[in-house]
Amino acid sequence: MDSIETQIDRFFNPKSVAIIGASRRPGRIGHIVVEQMVAAKYPGRLYLINPKAAKEGHHILGIKTYASIKDCGGSIELAIIVIPAKYIPIIMQDCVEMKVPNVIIVSGGFRESGPVGVELENQVLDIAKKGNIRVLGPNCLGTFSPGTHIDTLFLPESTTPRPRVGRISFLTQSGSVGGSVMSFAYNEDIGFSKFASFGNAIDVDEGDLIDYLEDDDDTQVTGLYLESINRGRKFINIAKRASKVKPIIVIKAGRSKAGTRAVSSHTGSLAGTDRIYDAAFEAAGVIRVKTIGEFFDVARALVNQPHAKGNRIGVITSGGGFGVMTLDALADYNLEAPELSEALQKRLHTKLPYYYSVKNPIDLTGSATAEQFAFSMNTLLDSDEIDGIIIIPLFMTPLLDAEQVSQAIIEASEHRKKPIIVVSVPSTKEIRKRMFNLRLAGVPSYHLPIRGARGMAALVEYGEILQRPEE
Amino acid sequence: MDSIETQIDRFFNPKSVAIIGASRRPGRIGHIVVEQMVAAKYPGRLYLINPKAAKEGHHILGIKTYASIKDCGGSIELAIIVIPAKYIPIIMQDCVEMKVPNVIIVSGGFRESGPVGVELENQVLDIAKKGNIRVLGPNCLGTFSPGTHIDTLFLPESTTPRPRVGRISFLTQSGSVGGSVMSFAYNEDIGFSKFASFGNAIDVDEGDLIDYLEDDDDTQVTGLYLESINRGRKFINIAKRASKVKPIIVIKAGRSKAGTRAVSSHTGSLAGTDRIYDAAFEAAGVIRVKTIGEFFDVARALVNQPHAKGNRIGVITSGGGFGVMTLDALADYNLEAPELSEALQKRLHTKLPYYYSVKNPIDLTGSATAEQFAFSMNTLLDSDEIDGIIIIPLFMTPLLDAEQVSQAIIEASEHRKKPIIVVSVPSTKEIRKRMFNLRLAGVPSYHLPIRGARGMAALVEYGEILQRPEE
Repeated sequence: MDSIETQIDRFFNPKSVAIIGASRRPGRIGHIVVEQMVAAKYPGRLYLINPKAAKEGHHILGIKTYASIKDCGGSIELAIIVIPAKYIPIIMQDCVEMKVPNVIIVSGGFRESGPVGVELENQVLDIAKKGNIRVLGPNCLGTFSPGTHIDTLFLPESTTPRPRVGRISFLTQSGSVGGSVMSFAYNEDIGFSKFASFGNAIDVDEGDLIDYLEDDDDTQVTGLYLESINRGRKFINIAKRASKVKPIIVIKAGRSKAGTRAVSSHTGSLAGTDRIYDAAFEAAGVIRVKTIGEFFDVARALVNQPHAKGNRIGVITSGGGFGVMTLDALADYNLEAPELSEALQKRLHTKLPYYYSVKNPIDLTGSATAEQFAFSMNTLLDSDEIDGIIIIPLFMTPLLDAEQVSQAIIEASEHRKKPIIVVSVPSTKEIRKRMFNLRLAGVPSYHLPIRGARGMAALVEYGEILQRPEE
Repeated sequence: MDSIETQIDRFFNPKSVAIIGASRRPGRIGHIVVEQMVAAKYPGRLYLINPKAAKEGHHILGIKTYASIKDCGGSIELAIIVIPAKYIPIIMQDCVEMKVPNVIIVSGGFRESGPVGVELENQVLDIAKKGNIRVLGPNCLGTFSPGTHIDTLFLPESTTPRPRVGRISFLTQSGSVGGSVMSFAYNEDIGFSKFASFGNAIDVDEGDLIDYLEDDDDTQVTGLYLESINRGRKFINIAKRASKVKPIIVIKAGRSKAGTRAVSSHTGSLAGTDRIYDAAFEAAGVIRVKTIGEFFDVARALVNQPHAKGNRIGVITSGGGFGVMTLDALADYNLEAPELSEALQKRLHTKLPYYYSVKNPIDLTGSATAEQFAFSMNTLLDSDEIDGIIIIPLFMTPLLDAEQVSQAIIEASEHRKKPIIVVSVPSTKEIRKRMFNLRLAGVPSYHLPIRGARGMAALVEYGEILQRPEE
């Protein structure tokens, strides 16, 4: 039998795909999946299964249709099933017969819709187990992987734009949240490596997928959206090991009592109390975030910057008020902004005017120059009093050579001595473009102090996770 | 003597203005202020004071220069002073002589820069008191009021774009934060009525300005950025009364111990412990927010929607996961999302499919139609179980007529029965435009559940403030 890694890999990188329930009608789920596979430039063999279309000799988007996978005449590595739930057991039998190793069941109508659905789900699982088929879903979107050119998502790109290739992978229990996360990533210009929506997870679950991504060279950070975990012990065991290799970030919805009630209505599963989840994530070395916005703040930092070796953060700014707000934000995340030693202050004052306050924050005032920013940053990088740096240049101040500051930050960041994060008010298109360029160069840049502090807090937390003794 | 209202009004609506220290050189503060007054289409008489330029007969941007305000030959209602601190006492004497009633001192170099500055500040204040001059500043940006065409801010519009005319006014201790808030407002398309940066506030302070805005018909919500309050009793007395007339939102930086230390370095004032501020804001009926982002979330809700009469929120969505996240977010702000009564659930199920969960959230699923959104919303508006509604339509789902949903929401919002807030993922340009149109029509719309919940929480809090018994 194939290794589990090989098994899961076929969901993201199959040599041949059959879409069972491919539809001729634009707007239908079975049509959108075909469109998206074509748009993704899927390079392997693509078989479309639709008995009626096949009988009438129809093609869909120029691709031939077959009445059954038994007629394709080629081996199928992945079947994407989009037909109504009640017909799926029969189709699964076909898959067993044709030795299809992987199946994504997109269709809903299972556990989430009542007792009949539960029965159907058990039936499907039974067939899969006996036939050695790995199943993703049901009630899911399947997978998206721009690097390997697969996209099984029935959300048209015109309304759910896809992110570019990148190094973050994302696993989601909820399809609608998953689709939204992809759109956010597109709009924030954050790249994705692999995306999987696992829905009811009757077979392959978040644990298996984390396990797979642990060894995936194209993934540097793993994100998760969960409403419940059914196999808690498995999850903790896998995540505990995987989180030492690359950071795992989780959005666990149903944090509140009311939210937990909503989870039961939504997925039919019991969410359990939030404190248990908190303990599990802590034990597993998983970084927990509350919101989608926080997820991106944290992911952006973790995918680009080295972890921090401690929680002492230095702040350099040209706007005093921003220095204050950043120190508040750091405190919100239990990070320290220690007052710099007299010796270090003295060193800073060798090149900074005596009336600049350099206690931390280092307030370069409205008279700040690019040289002063670079000097302050490099002094903190060389000091053992500080573990990470947040820089808040007010790019709009007239005296500041914004290009020169940006270059100095990018160069410093490339040495990867300590994590560096930039916060800047996105006043104008020009400044937004500058922030975009910083991001391209691997310097996470944020619009607000609180968001930059969240990113830094994740780098500190991941440093702590890595330092934990192995059991 | 003029009423205090008339006195303060001249900072925003002066009949004639002198810029003392107007400069010929582009990029100089004294030049930018002239540029901005011209750009703002200031309709009154504008006198530029620059002895050297006057001597040489120079104009600045086509406007005549004078050696002194004594040479202008006209009365001056507002003098904007941008010359170095040490010359300001002499100029203040000129202002007394010429009976200039209002002065904005933009220049820094006072209390914030040490003992000499403190002495200078006292001198200036002394002259102002004896001469009956109201002073804004020093060490400030002055005022901006697009409706009355004044803009004394030395931040060029090319790097600090100004917001359009609107109904939010903003008062700030920090110039750089104030400028950033304006840029954010511009980028978020939030309109401003009046903006004042009061810096060291030797005379006119946040209390006077709140007092003035209380009766300003063009202001519906007052925002504040503070690092310290010097006259606490005055602030509380004024805010307590004003907050019953219109909401006051405050960002008080220096919330943390480290932040407080940074305040001392930044402004030279003692910030006091945060708990005292919290108590003061509570007593004053002021809504406190932690960040600039939160400020806009809250302001957007308060300026558009009626306050809530209680904290029981109903949630209507077409994405189950978003329902869960919204309930979590409501709990984060201590809002209730009560399970709807059986009677109300029954009423909802008269027109909604039996398999839709309608406990709260009302989950219309991916099959949601515009009619179902409108019916659910109107049912909650008519019910006495719910005080406010958050609607999360996934505009990208293919079956949903997005235009029809938007129209139904706008109509319902116009009746102002209960506050209505929209959350939507800004996937595409089309959806962002739809959200923009909702905002134009007075429906606050947010990109994330947590931000929509923050807006709703402010509407609930303001309802509580209004219900407090008068003392």
